[in-house]
Amino acid sequence: MADIREILSWYGSDNPGTLTNLSRMLQHGRLGGSGKMVILPVDQGFEHGPARSFAPNPPAYDPHYHYKLAIKSGCNAYAAPLGFLEAGAREFAGDVPLILKVNDHDVLYDEADPNQALTGSVSDALRLGCVGIGFTIYPGSAQRLDMYSQIHTYAEEAKRYGLVVVIWSYPRGSGLSRDGETGIDVTAYAAHLAAQLGAHIIKVKLPSSHVEQDAARKVYEDCHIPVATLTERVRHVVQCCFNGRRVVIFSGGPAVPDDQVFDEIRAIRDGGGFGSIIGRNSFQRPEPESLQFLDTIMKIYAGEQS
Amino acid sequence: MADIREILSWYGSDNPGTLTNLSRMLQHGRLGGSGKMVILPVDQGFEHGPARSFAPNPPAYDPHYHYKLAIKSGCNAYAAPLGFLEAGAREFAGDVPLILKVNDHDVLYDEADPNQALTGSVSDALRLGCVGIGFTIYPGSAQRLDMYSQIHTYAEEAKRYGLVVVIWSYPRGSGLSRDGETGIDVTAYAAHLAAQLGAHIIKVKLPSSHVEQDAARKVYEDCHIPVATLTERVRHVVQCCFNGRRVVIFSGGPAVPDDQVFDEIRAIRDGGGFGSIIGRNSFQRPEPESLQFLDTIMKIYAGEQS
Amino acid sequence: MADIREILSWYGSDNPGTLTNLSRMLQHGRLGGSGKMVILPVDQGFEHGPARSFAPNPPAYDPHYHYKLAIKSGCNAYAAPLGFLEAGAREFAGDVPLILKVNDHDVLYDEADPNQALTGSVSDALRLGCVGIGFTIYPGSAQRLDMYSQIHTYAEEAKRYGLVVVIWSYPRGSGLSRDGETGIDVTAYAAHLAAQLGAHIIKVKLPSSHVEQDAARKVYEDCHIPVATLTERVRHVVQCCFNGRRVVIFSGGPAVPDDQVFDEIRAIRDGGGFGSIIGRNSFQRPEPESLQFLDTIMKIYAGEQS
Amino acid sequence: MADIREILSWYGSDNPGTLTNLSRMLQHGRLGGSGKMVILPVDQGFEHGPARSFAPNPPAYDPHYHYKLAIKSGCNAYAAPLGFLEAGAREFAGDVPLILKVNDHDVLYDEADPNQALTGSVSDALRLGCVGIGFTIYPGSAQRLDMYSQIHTYAEEAKRYGLVVVIWSYPRGSGLSRDGETGIDVTAYAAHLAAQLGAHIIKVKLPSSHVEQDAARKVYEDCHIPVATLTERVRHVVQCCFNGRRVVIFSGGPAVPDDQVFDEIRAIRDGGGFGSIIGRNSFQRPEPESLQFLDTIMKIYAGEQS
Amino acid sequence: MADIREILSWYGSDNPGTLTNLSRMLQHGRLGGSGKMVILPVDQGFEHGPARSFAPNPPAYDPHYHYKLAIKSGCNAYAAPLGFLEAGAREFAGDVPLILKVNDHDVLYDEADPNQALTGSVSDALRLGCVGIGFTIYPGSAQRLDMYSQIHTYAEEAKRYGLVVVIWSYPRGSGLSRDGETGIDVTAYAAHLAAQLGAHIIKVKLPSSHVEQDAARKVYEDCHIPVATLTERVRHVVQCCFNGRRVVIFSGGPAVPDDQVFDEIRAIRDGGGFGSIIGRNSFQRPEPESLQFLDTIMKIYAGEQS
Repeated sequence: MADIREILSWYGSDNPGTLTNLSRMLQHGRLGGSGKMVILPVDQGFEHGPARSFAPNPPAYDPHYHYKLAIKSGCNAYAAPLGFLEAGAREFAGDVPLILKVNDHDVLYDEADPNQALTGSVSDALRLGCVGIGFTIYPGSAQRLDMYSQIHTYAEEAKRYGLVVVIWSYPRGSGLSRDGETGIDVTAYAAHLAAQLGAHIIKVKLPSSHVEQDAARKVYEDCHIPVATLTERVRHVVQCCFNGRRVVIFSGGPAVPDDQVFDEIRAIRDGGGFGSIIGRNSFQRPEPESLQFLDTIMKIYAGEQS
Repeated sequence: MADIREILSWYGSDNPGTLTNLSRMLQHGRLGGSGKMVILPVDQGFEHGPARSFAPNPPAYDPHYHYKLAIKSGCNAYAAPLGFLEAGAREFAGDVPLILKVNDHDVLYDEADPNQALTGSVSDALRLGCVGIGFTIYPGSAQRLDMYSQIHTYAEEAKRYGLVVVIWSYPRGSGLSRDGETGIDVTAYAAHLAAQLGAHIIKVKLPSSHVEQDAARKVYEDCHIPVATLTERVRHVVQCCFNGRRVVIFSGGPAVPDDQVFDEIRAIRDGGGFGSIIGRNSFQRPEPESLQFLDTIMKIYAGEQS
Repeated sequence: MADIREILSWYGSDNPGTLTNLSRMLQHGRLGGSGKMVILPVDQGFEHGPARSFAPNPPAYDPHYHYKLAIKSGCNAYAAPLGFLEAGAREFAGDVPLILKVNDHDVLYDEADPNQALTGSVSDALRLGCVGIGFTIYPGSAQRLDMYSQIHTYAEEAKRYGLVVVIWSYPRGSGLSRDGETGIDVTAYAAHLAAQLGAHIIKVKLPSSHVEQDAARKVYEDCHIPVATLTERVRHVVQCCFNGRRVVIFSGGPAVPDDQVFDEIRAIRDGGGFGSIIGRNSFQRPEPESLQFLDTIMKIYAGEQS
Repeated sequence: MADIREILSWYGSDNPGTLTNLSRMLQHGRLGGSGKMVILPVDQGFEHGPARSFAPNPPAYDPHYHYKLAIKSGCNAYAAPLGFLEAGAREFAGDVPLILKVNDHDVLYDEADPNQALTGSVSDALRLGCVGIGFTIYPGSAQRLDMYSQIHTYAEEAKRYGLVVVIWSYPRGSGLSRDGETGIDVTAYAAHLAAQLGAHIIKVKLPSSHVEQDAARKVYEDCHIPVATLTERVRHVVQCCFNGRRVVIFSGGPAVPDDQVFDEIRAIRDGGGFGSIIGRNSFQRPEPESLQFLDTIMKIYAGEQS
Repeated sequence: MADIREILSWYGSDNPGTLTNLSRMLQHGRLGGSGKMVILPVDQGFEHGPARSFAPNPPAYDPHYHYKLAIKSGCNAYAAPLGFLEAGAREFAGDVPLILKVNDHDVLYDEADPNQALTGSVSDALRLGCVGIGFTIYPGSAQRLDMYSQIHTYAEEAKRYGLVVVIWSYPRGSGLSRDGETGIDVTAYAAHLAAQLGAHIIKVKLPSSHVEQDAARKVYEDCHIPVATLTERVRHVVQCCFNGRRVVIFSGGPAVPDDQVFDEIRAIRDGGGFGSIIGRNSFQRPEPESLQFLDTIMKIYAGEQS
């Protein structure tokens, strides 16, 4: 398992300010110092609407709930849009590393080639005491080039001011089939794009064994790239991110049975992934259950549980 | 009923300048100090045309009329586009808190996916002595992401200069059915979006019990979210705005019988809403009747009348 | 008839620089001090081409011709695009108030939803010694929101530097029928939009009695708004511009018989309009006839002729 | 023939820096002091491709060739895109006035409504020692308003820094028929647009007697505008440029027999045109022939040859 | 063979900073001082995806691999997108001249008229210690004018700060047939465009003898431009780049048999080309083979091998 000092060494082009903030995340919480991370993201209110996000566990309507959950569970960081962060940044100042999601998307309009709105800035992140910014790109969308250009502009400014850049790379849009969005070739490609765009931390969905593009399929077959198991696929994605020189974490997607989640966590761990970003599976249940659930996940990552 | 000090405490990420202006609105007028607000908005001349707006009560063609109406009736604030505010800001300087509507839309062109023009600036608001800016977004429109990005830019600048940000969140556009524009799921979502975009005060229309989106309907049913009565729906919308940690007010829509309006005010009050923004029902009748009408509304909010 | 001091009092949000320039226009020329204005606009070369504009009176090809015509006839101001103003601003410096048209449109391409090009700036207006800028909007065009946003940006800068803002509000585009472009409801709405956008002086075409929009027709009928005569229609438009608190002037349109023009001037005067902006009817005839023609118009406005 | 001092007097709104550069062009070369100009433009490599432009005379592939040709032939100025100017500006510094073409278009994509790319800046022109910038507009294209707005921005900056503004006004696009592109009404209109946009020097193609627009045809007939001969048409175009108060020059178009070119030069001279801009006819033949050819043209302009 | 001092003399409009960086590239590595260059470009991860690029030689997933390959093989420079450069710029600081690719394109969305995202900046290039920037244009795409305008902006800034500008000119898009993308007329035109846009170094693909455009075919035939052999075509392209006054290098395209590559290198050398930019043929094989392969190429360029 990578030591924090080694992880920091991969980011030789960044200033000490950014390394300090990256170190803060890596040293914080239950997994602090392990080189693994669990991040609590709560942008579902914006992305899917408040009732779909919080009605299953009504205390979660309150922005303080998520701050407390991230703190109590010992997450490495808490990521949310502007409004949610503003609503507690003073009360919980210094208690948990914060990541400001600086772009967001809602589902009150349905488009074939989605984009995101720019809903936060580097200045916002700094005034709220965040350690970094989060930015979503949609490889596969006709709008993707605009998003790549935007994240470059954001990342350049963020790095100048010592912030960490986290890219949510979510393949989506008319360039891809539904299965293709989580296909192994597409996921690995999307993760690589985020790395090339300058991300310090890359977040992708767990990939399936589906291969979407013909030109890629030929290579996966000819080179016998092992992608049959989830562990292998995680390993491949990590390799595609500068051969492991970038922190790659995986998101949980919609709520699934806990055992399945735990199996996924083991696959991430065993494949050399650096952790998870777990939203709905965390906050859509009563807090005690959430804490229990996150504790199990962290134990798996920490190697305290197989 | 929330005490003003408590309301201000919800905005811990804002500077004292913004809190001062928010406090000015909350302390002004007939409802000053009660934690409830009634705002007079007069953007209908721009939005629907002058004759449709003012012919029913011709003195209302005069911009001074609305300043005086807001002052005499004891409204907490008066909101209008640039021209209307410029036409009286010197004469009535200091007499009523002002909100500059910084974007507007007209109906001389009919589009399926509306946007708004940027018709005012933070600098305008400051030079006119305003306490805040008002911005409309149209969730449901193909243009919505542009509006979300714009309000972010405006809000960031406004907060830097100590202004209050009020977002009119009006679902509209080809992403929604006509009924869907005021559906409870859509209204709650739209209010939540405004909160996430950094609004201090959120203005939405009173929601119907219609549920627009299939994915939302499942949750409303499964979680038994009570939305049968208007009071319940107001309570749900307030909950969706950071569990009550944001000021949500409701607009009156087209002229309806007074008794119906008063019933709606009671529902807002009983559901935990923070007040009303009432345009056409106020100024489209002779001034004495308006004052009487607004007085009744304020009595209901103040708890002086059931 | 409004006294100049009173007119200036309507612009309480403007700085003394702007009031000085507005006063210069109101005090200049044959109608100086009367509160009425006649402005000579010569943008037809750009808008319709040079031959269509100047061949009927070839000396008018010369930009100096129009400066001299405006000066000799005693117009309150001369308005033209950049090139025409640059071609005489030094020679006639100080002889007549100048308005720089900062956007323009040509007819070498025919579009359903017109826009304008930005062909001048506030800096241009200042370096040429202008008292103000002129800007055209096309309510009814799919491009209108862009124009509204642009004029706001221009107007904000112009006001900061003490210039007067004149808006040409010309309904046009696929949102309107041909008759609708000059319909009374549309004209009144267009004038109101200009006022809300911050214009000091509003220029519209003389309206017909046609009512374009159904929602408006209902109000015109229910409220018995008198629009049968041109005088009544002028009065209605003036009322729709902040109840007479904004200077509204009317344009002449294509060349028509002089008697008809004089009747229109009387209607403008009797309806409370503030004057005329007369291009083609002025310069498309020999200078002596123009001077005679404009003299008659000014006499009507001055009340020296019925 | 206009004296240089008189020509400069037409530009009373420009600063001495711009007049100095304009004077430099008018005083330079074989026609220096005559009030006439011949400019060598070499943007055909960009516009049509290098082989089509230079293969007929291979030494012309070398950017130094054109500098030398302009110098040896005694042209008033040499105009080219960024790359060509950069490739010799140091070697030939001070030997010939330079005009930087700041926008350009290629034909590797064929569009109905062309635009141009912005390929140079005012700063580029200044660092290369140019006397002015050249900008192409396409009246008749759906993209024309963008080009008008761009040239305004460029011209404003150029004038601030003492540069001359040359506008290539080339009607083109879906708003015009093929014949219409060089029709007399369209050419005259296009030249007038350039003048209104603030050009010091206007370049148009030699017009045909075709009249494109119905509204224009009526005027050309009713006013008996003489356009039967090329001389008359040149005179009309010059008249349409502020009655001769702007320098209008004409381009040669594709290679034609020399006698025809010389006849055209006589027509330009006799019609009051100020000169020519001659590219392909100059450099697409061996240098000695070019020099001979240009010498004849200059003799005609200088009145040394009928 | 051109001496370095002579090459630098072609760039007389550039500042000493840019000449210094150009000299650094020309003096670096195995071919240093010869006037020839071999550059290692590794943007295929972004352009085609990581598995297609690196699975054939898995150590190449690691960004350090490419730094080392460029250093060990003695390449003149190493070019890559932001992420790849950031991942080693500190470790290998000063060991090899770096070129930051500032725009990039991926294939997760397939478009008829491609564009590129802006993924790096001049500031990025400076903070990473690069000698220059690389920019791709797609002549033939409907988006090309935007790319031309962007590269101008980038190039102007890069030159101000002493960086070298390398343009990848890759014809592509609906304006061209598939064969046309590498046709000799199109390739020569594309190279010339890059030169006119201000490139110091121009990169094109090796052209075929296909002639795409009718207007060009006539000239190629009439002027008997020799393009039958690859050597002739290289010579023609170099001629089209300011008659040899710009450095033109050629890219290798997809992996082909080594002997074919070596023949191409000879053709480039014999045609007066300045070198190669070789990606996939270099890094998609085991390192020892790559070094052998590149050594042979450099020997051919150095004239040590026929």
